[in-house]
Amino acid sequence: MGILNHYSVQVDWGDCDPAGIVFYPNFYRWMDRGFWLLFESRSLTLEALKRRFGVFGGPLVDTSATFVSPARMGDELTVTSCIDDWSRKSFRLRHEFTCKDKEIASGFETRVWGVKKADGAIRAGIIPDEVKALFS
Amino acid sequence: MGILNHYSVQVDWGDCDPAGIVFYPNFYRWMDRGFWLLFESRSLTLEALKRRFGVFGGPLVDTSATFVSPARMGDELTVTSCIDDWSRKSFRLRHEFTCKDKEIASGFETRVWGVKKADGAIRAGIIPDEVKALFS
Amino acid sequence: MGILNHYSVQVDWGDCDPAGIVFYPNFYRWMDRGFWLLFESRSLTLEALKRRFGVFGGPLVDTSATFVSPARMGDELTVTSCIDDWSRKSFRLRHEFTCKDKEIASGFETRVWGVKKADGAIRAGIIPDEVKALFS
Amino acid sequence: MGILNHYSVQVDWGDCDPAGIVFYPNFYRWMDRGFWLLFESRSLTLEALKRRFGVFGGPLVDTSATFVSPARMGDELTVTSCIDDWSRKSFRLRHEFTCKDKEIASGFETRVWGVKKADGAIRAGIIPDEVKALFS
Repeated sequence: MGILNHYSVQVDWGDCDPAGIVFYPNFYRWMDRGFWLLFESRSLTLEALKRRFGVFGGPLVDTSATFVSPARMGDELTVTSCIDDWSRKSFRLRHEFTCKDKEIASGFETRVWGVKKADGAIRAGIIPDEVKALFS
Repeated sequence: MGILNHYSVQVDWGDCDPAGIVFYPNFYRWMDRGFWLLFESRSLTLEALKRRFGVFGGPLVDTSATFVSPARMGDELTVTSCIDDWSRKSFRLRHEFTCKDKEIASGFETRVWGVKKADGAIRAGIIPDEVKALFS
Repeated sequence: MGILNHYSVQVDWGDCDPAGIVFYPNFYRWMDRGFWLLFESRSLTLEALKRRFGVFGGPLVDTSATFVSPARMGDELTVTSCIDDWSRKSFRLRHEFTCKDKEIASGFETRVWGVKKADGAIRAGIIPDEVKALFS
Repeated sequence: MGILNHYSVQVDWGDCDPAGIVFYPNFYRWMDRGFWLLFESRSLTLEALKRRFGVFGGPLVDTSATFVSPARMGDELTVTSCIDDWSRKSFRLRHEFTCKDKEIASGFETRVWGVKKADGAIRAGIIPDEVKALFS
């Protein structure tokens, strides 16, 4: 699995819907945070990505999530993120949500290595080996 | 495919991230809206669902989305939703996002028929045939 | 009052909290949308603002809102926006939310005219008279 | 000022708009979180509020915020919340946002003591003295 990053999020009142459980798009918001925090844990902040690699974010190609148990206001969730697959220009993240060892949800994000081209557009570039090495 | 529902959403400033494109969890927010509007188009509002079937929403089991082209502020998206699979206690929705005939994204939501039990908990119940008939 | 802009928003499931009413930060999201749509109604899209005036958005200085009646899922809200005060480098918007003539909420946003400087920073610039004229 | 509560929030990619700064409604989301965490710090969780006082949240009457410096992705904000005014049925919270001692924003929320009535509606009730005492 390589490098793992963990962070905690406490479910807010505003994260929940009229059924009293987390409105599901918020899990994707937390997966996105998991991606950035995983990279940050390897010193790859947005600033460093831009400066060292001309990379401006990791645009999404595919995402998915499976919901096992509902989470409610005040629940303390642990989000565990890792990269579980590298391709030439894209990579796949796996995120797991638990609450006191109970499984809440899990999901995937496939992202491309978003290089800014001369015309300002962001396109998939080849992921440098040194980046891959940081996560192994 | 059965009954389709279409609605439009104009991408807001606040829907977009520092790369200037839609922050992807918003697509899931719009898929959720697509689910409710599809049901509403068959007179199945939240109120009617509660009154007629004791159903309180459609909790999610699985969701996924594929992103083809970025959408930006001001883009007028058409969201087309349908139910493309019925099981005994769950059903799958398909949502497509287009902008002037250009494909933007598509996704799936698998939801259960969320019946409120005597203890207040919401569990998967058997989907009535008359509900399935409304979408065929 | 000058030029008014109206738009409609149907309250979504995901806009509401566990009390079943709109989670209040969403009213500010809708006020922000009201600002952009008011400007767009005078042909001042983000694109036009950048091209004609080097203006990149209208950064906020102050905002406030008063909540009169709760709004619930499915409610069709009308948002009415206008500029009710112009200063040299800033202006104040007034937004009103109604639902079938019932008052729901109202609020203010004070924004500056956000000019992009040579160093990339966005600072308050002097609002051109031709812009003010478009709203009178 | 009475009891203060502090918490930290790191600005996410998804909290920021195309100008690269926090989309302002998020500050209200964080003020709402500040309210709940302040109450929780006095053992007044949502669960305790319901059980002990029949109170289901603190519906908003008025909110406002002033923005001093923009916050960007990765900024670590400290949110300091307190109750700065008590009325018979309502109270006012003050929230301050700082980033490494730099002032970012501040705001107010006036909330009522939301008691659930026999008909299910939530109305303003008289705030018990023992609650007020917890914050002095």
